[in-house]
Amino acid sequence: MTAQTVLLDFSIDPSRIGDKVGLKDTVKLLEKGLLEFFPQLKLIFETSTSDGHLCVFSQNDAIFLNARFFNHGIIAINIEYFKDNVEQPFVTFDKIRSLEKLLRKMLEAERSKHFPPIKRGCRIDVYLTSSDERILEYDIDKVIYEGTSPFQKIQIVHSKSLGNMLVLDELQNIAESDLIYTETLMQRGIENYEGKEICILGGGDGALLYELLKEKPKFVTMLEIDEMVMQVCNKYLKSICGDVLELRKSDNFEIIVDDCMIYLDKFIKEGKKFDYVFGDLTDIPISDTPTGEVWNFFRSILEHSFKILKPTGKYLTHGNGANRPDSLSMFEEQLEKLEPKVKFTRANAFVPSFMEDWVFYQITFDDV
Amino acid sequence: MTAQTVLLDFSIDPSRIGDKVGLKDTVKLLEKGLLEFFPQLKLIFETSTSDGHLCVFSQNDAIFLNARFFNHGIIAINIEYFKDNVEQPFVTFDKIRSLEKLLRKMLEAERSKHFPPIKRGCRIDVYLTSSDERILEYDIDKVIYEGTSPFQKIQIVHSKSLGNMLVLDELQNIAESDLIYTETLMQRGIENYEGKEICILGGGDGALLYELLKEKPKFVTMLEIDEMVMQVCNKYLKSICGDVLELRKSDNFEIIVDDCMIYLDKFIKEGKKFDYVFGDLTDIPISDTPTGEVWNFFRSILEHSFKILKPTGKYLTHGNGANRPDSLSMFEEQLEKLEPKVKFTRANAFVPSFMEDWVFYQITFDDV
Repeated sequence: MTAQTVLLDFSIDPSRIGDKVGLKDTVKLLEKGLLEFFPQLKLIFETSTSDGHLCVFSQNDAIFLNARFFNHGIIAINIEYFKDNVEQPFVTFDKIRSLEKLLRKMLEAERSKHFPPIKRGCRIDVYLTSSDERILEYDIDKVIYEGTSPFQKIQIVHSKSLGNMLVLDELQNIAESDLIYTETLMQRGIENYEGKEICILGGGDGALLYELLKEKPKFVTMLEIDEMVMQVCNKYLKSICGDVLELRKSDNFEIIVDDCMIYLDKFIKEGKKFDYVFGDLTDIPISDTPTGEVWNFFRSILEHSFKILKPTGKYLTHGNGANRPDSLSMFEEQLEKLEPKVKFTRANAFVPSFMEDWVFYQITFDDV
Repeated sequence: MTAQTVLLDFSIDPSRIGDKVGLKDTVKLLEKGLLEFFPQLKLIFETSTSDGHLCVFSQNDAIFLNARFFNHGIIAINIEYFKDNVEQPFVTFDKIRSLEKLLRKMLEAERSKHFPPIKRGCRIDVYLTSSDERILEYDIDKVIYEGTSPFQKIQIVHSKSLGNMLVLDELQNIAESDLIYTETLMQRGIENYEGKEICILGGGDGALLYELLKEKPKFVTMLEIDEMVMQVCNKYLKSICGDVLELRKSDNFEIIVDDCMIYLDKFIKEGKKFDYVFGDLTDIPISDTPTGEVWNFFRSILEHSFKILKPTGKYLTHGNGANRPDSLSMFEEQLEKLEPKVKFTRANAFVPSFMEDWVFYQITFDDV
């Protein structure tokens, strides 16, 4: 039960809109074409716009159709209707395709475009957004879990192709399809974890811990604040976290449920040092300037992390979408401010559930 | 220079739309909220619909805003305006986010949603569609090549994250990011091509041939009809096809530019047999029933291919999106009709440039 919006557009000779007589003919032509698909269609409103013309059509007061004529030669058509689950859709994809073809011919359009119906008012949100604000429609067919912890909104949704997906505060986080994410974060095949001491900041989905343990480290300490995330992932993302969130500790790992800052301070005081620290917390914030609470938190985490790293140690973390050079630069600016000086390398991976290329950082002390 | 459409929607208590007095208040409330973002906004048209109400607002005859109130409790808002390249956009993403937040609060909506602005009338089409008709916005920033061969429309576009992409007749075909496509098609690491005789039907992008040659086959014969595709790929997809489209033949491969059916007939007549035949032609057609020219062509290809396979030979081909079980079933029905009987296995891979899971088939004679 959703409303649906179908978008179509056509590029035509601008003179057929800008010129008054031309416009009248173009409107008539469009109406004629539309009538073949919507026989009861009526023009119910029209007005001039600063950049062209607007017509509103209605079929039986149920399907409404806006046609906007832009002087630059674009006709943008929006068709909107309510779609009941039990009924056949008013407008099928085949019908849209045929309508586009017909109108393209009638309007002698040099280009045309149709979009799949956009579902409005969905209980299950299938439209997620990439880091660079592109619209991506997922094949999500079920919300498996929904809850709110003291820290965030937690959802597990099921995607037909990506498996179960963890969505935190409306942002896609990790899915069953995303081994490449964890492998790129940990630089599998490049880094050697055997016998090493490792600290994970965050990592509540358990995937990083699970994969690291396969590499025979000496000990992994994971600091995760959100108990609820771990319970949910243990239940619904078993294929990526195995039994680590169930066990919570063993002879080679321990999960501590607390604010990682408290433990970072504790480790610094004790002089405890690690071979690897993983920053698996919130994504780098997307904002115009590197200010505000999240960036301060982020800088503070970095400063503390380097204090618990051995001189030859590495800090590994995820960055942001490769299409956000602005955000990545801000991250790198923060790195440059650190004392003692650090240096870094970057690695990229196309993460299935993000549907985009993601950047990961490997950071060491500069004098290594 | 495009028109842009911004979609927002809200789910509210249905009684606030279905009830006449309630509706009036809801419209007023919405108008009040919108005025904070569009101070010159005027209601220029309204009408009752069979399922609720429709309002059309205008700001300075330039930004038009449709608000449709559905009795089921959905308000769908479409904001449309022309965006010049030189001007600041009327509506920024931050502004949309703030507007959604404000209206959600004012309307006491239980859920709300905003979409990134949808670009209309673009010269470069960034919206491609998945096999199951989902909308996917690509980070395409350039059309590198556009031409029409006797067989198809050929485009090379550049995606910031996927590299150069081959688009044939508006369908994404292969991109520089898609080694996994070729590796899954050829079952790298599972099949052993050393010393084998191989025939590729199609494969004009050169990627399959290029990867196969790394596995030391005895000889690969490639039958591709479209000379122009090969010239274009040789120029713009060098990273996936190496020099094979440049060389055209060597001591272990040959590309024959012709209709593969002619050569299949020729091979059958000569009694020539291969260890592997690859079907790297058009995708399985998406249609309701397995009829029509494309399916006939497809069946015919399969029948002929098995006649040039050694008894232990394999036919490897791509199928369709994993989300199109209807289309995959039709393909499998065709396989069942073949004489002598065949059997098959399936493999899946998430193909970056398709942004979806794709199915590949490995087919052998049933008595192997």
